[in-house]
Amino acid sequence: MNEIAVPSLEQIVAAQERIRPHAVRTPLLESAAINELTGGRILFKPEVLQTTGSFKFRGACNRMLQLSAVERRAGVVAFSSGNHALAVSAVAQMMGVTATILMPADAPRIKIEGARKYGAVVQLYDRRKEDREAIAANLVAITGALTVPPFDDPHVITGQGTVGLEIAQDLLHLRLVPDAVVAPCSGGGLIAGLASAIRNFFPETLTYAVEPADFDDLARSLATGKRERNALTAESICDALQVATPGILTFPLNRNLLAGGLTVTDDEVKHAMQVVFSHLKLVVEPGGAAACAALLAGKLDVRGKTVVAVLSGGNVDPATFSDIVGSTAS
Amino acid sequence: MNEIAVPSLEQIVAAQERIRPHAVRTPLLESAAINELTGGRILFKPEVLQTTGSFKFRGACNRMLQLSAVERRAGVVAFSSGNHALAVSAVAQMMGVTATILMPADAPRIKIEGARKYGAVVQLYDRRKEDREAIAANLVAITGALTVPPFDDPHVITGQGTVGLEIAQDLLHLRLVPDAVVAPCSGGGLIAGLASAIRNFFPETLTYAVEPADFDDLARSLATGKRERNALTAESICDALQVATPGILTFPLNRNLLAGGLTVTDDEVKHAMQVVFSHLKLVVEPGGAAACAALLAGKLDVRGKTVVAVLSGGNVDPATFSDIVGSTAS
Repeated sequence: MNEIAVPSLEQIVAAQERIRPHAVRTPLLESAAINELTGGRILFKPEVLQTTGSFKFRGACNRMLQLSAVERRAGVVAFSSGNHALAVSAVAQMMGVTATILMPADAPRIKIEGARKYGAVVQLYDRRKEDREAIAANLVAITGALTVPPFDDPHVITGQGTVGLEIAQDLLHLRLVPDAVVAPCSGGGLIAGLASAIRNFFPETLTYAVEPADFDDLARSLATGKRERNALTAESICDALQVATPGILTFPLNRNLLAGGLTVTDDEVKHAMQVVFSHLKLVVEPGGAAACAALLAGKLDVRGKTVVAVLSGGNVDPATFSDIVGSTAS
Repeated sequence: MNEIAVPSLEQIVAAQERIRPHAVRTPLLESAAINELTGGRILFKPEVLQTTGSFKFRGACNRMLQLSAVERRAGVVAFSSGNHALAVSAVAQMMGVTATILMPADAPRIKIEGARKYGAVVQLYDRRKEDREAIAANLVAITGALTVPPFDDPHVITGQGTVGLEIAQDLLHLRLVPDAVVAPCSGGGLIAGLASAIRNFFPETLTYAVEPADFDDLARSLATGKRERNALTAESICDALQVATPGILTFPLNRNLLAGGLTVTDDEVKHAMQVVFSHLKLVVEPGGAAACAALLAGKLDVRGKTVVAVLSGGNVDPATFSDIVGSTAS
């Protein structure tokens, strides 16, 4: 069995202290218009404002600040569709560590170019034809570098838990108890860390993972109790939320921590991006809008409830964003 | 002489306490990429995240929370190109006060419809043909309502000063002393309040107002020492920054408080909107991007300096935003 303990509150607090000099403490934002649209009180955690434009910076930072001197010299390797790549590249640049990143050739340009701007060596591969694991293993063998996993790593999960810790701290300050917390989900590191933090403060709060309709591996896995896979032909506008199957380490955690999984369509995601543009004035990428999309589409009954939704990332190409937001009906 | 005293720190702190339950305490945001582009350390104050999408909420809220019971029953009138309209409408709705708003017919739809959604009675007029002052005077005569001025009011100026107070509080926490503070300028209420607050904490800091190239009334007035007017034919993409002449109350304050005025072209503003989209993940309207545009265009030498730039508003129609951001070169 590949099982790890749920990150403790002490570990998440330590992570918060560790990443504090580098990470943005994102606020909670609220829109009267979105409250009206959903019938609930929705508080948004805008990780689009995080360093590198997504929550991934937290996990990568927490992991890499714990590298030994020997590991720092050997450098790091990461494979990622984009946001984890940006995060690892930025932390590596900050620490003076060499980073080699393996990314799908069809990742958004903003993500590929972003990683290069942070000084990483970016190697592209064909998502449909090449074996990422084999290329990555080869990279590690050649470079002697340590792999920084995007989600299946205790320090990465704990780092993402700081999202939940900050949410809890702000809610305590506001004297609010959330009925539910929802976040976009790919490998499950964010939602596992988030739920781990939240349950310390609000044991009755329900945490839900939101996935694209054809990448609902976690929702199905939670239902069957074993790690289900997505079809190889699955497509989604959410480039950041496309994993084959739940994480080896994150799935057992999420089985214990989550209330369930919700799914959203591409059209629901586009609508959420428009609503976030109009009412929160934020740029959110498709995957980053998934949790908001679930609430707007009524996938969870939030009427009369207090719900926190994570906007997990904002790295979207200008042309893509313009196409989606420019097609707003009114 | 129409002169009022510079708002005191005590008055601005009192305003902060007054509006605290309703206003967003916006953070300071920083982008490594924008620092690199400008050569300075730029901290952004994103008032696009403020309630109603601009700093105008602060002044309207501070003014209207001080209405007497009689004044509340009579309701309020405001004339505004948009952001002040949204602010007064939202505060009026919150307080259960009737609001009548006079807006130019060519204001952005998001602003006209927004004010209506907040329950205000919106009356449109033709900016080129009709006399706003006469229509407004007539409205006041008919309704018996109090006018909430967009800038020429001590409580409005003091309310906008809370932008500067929050900036100072955050900079003290970060142990930073700013070399300069820059903000977009129309009637001059924001910049007057901002500079009033800043000078209490950082007496050496230089505050600059940024205007559209053909609406540089304040820059010229600061140079000549008297209130200069803009040409009636002046045009700008910045719908929020189009006044005829500096405010009667704000100009004497700004003469004492400001280091100078900077101007930006439409193209410089569009570029700034693209940069803010890509690197800060924020939706900023043309006028709201003016200060950022001045820094990116090198209108102020910020190399090696610490500078705060206010992003004053984010109320832009989706089609306009998409056209501008979608035309990004890379």
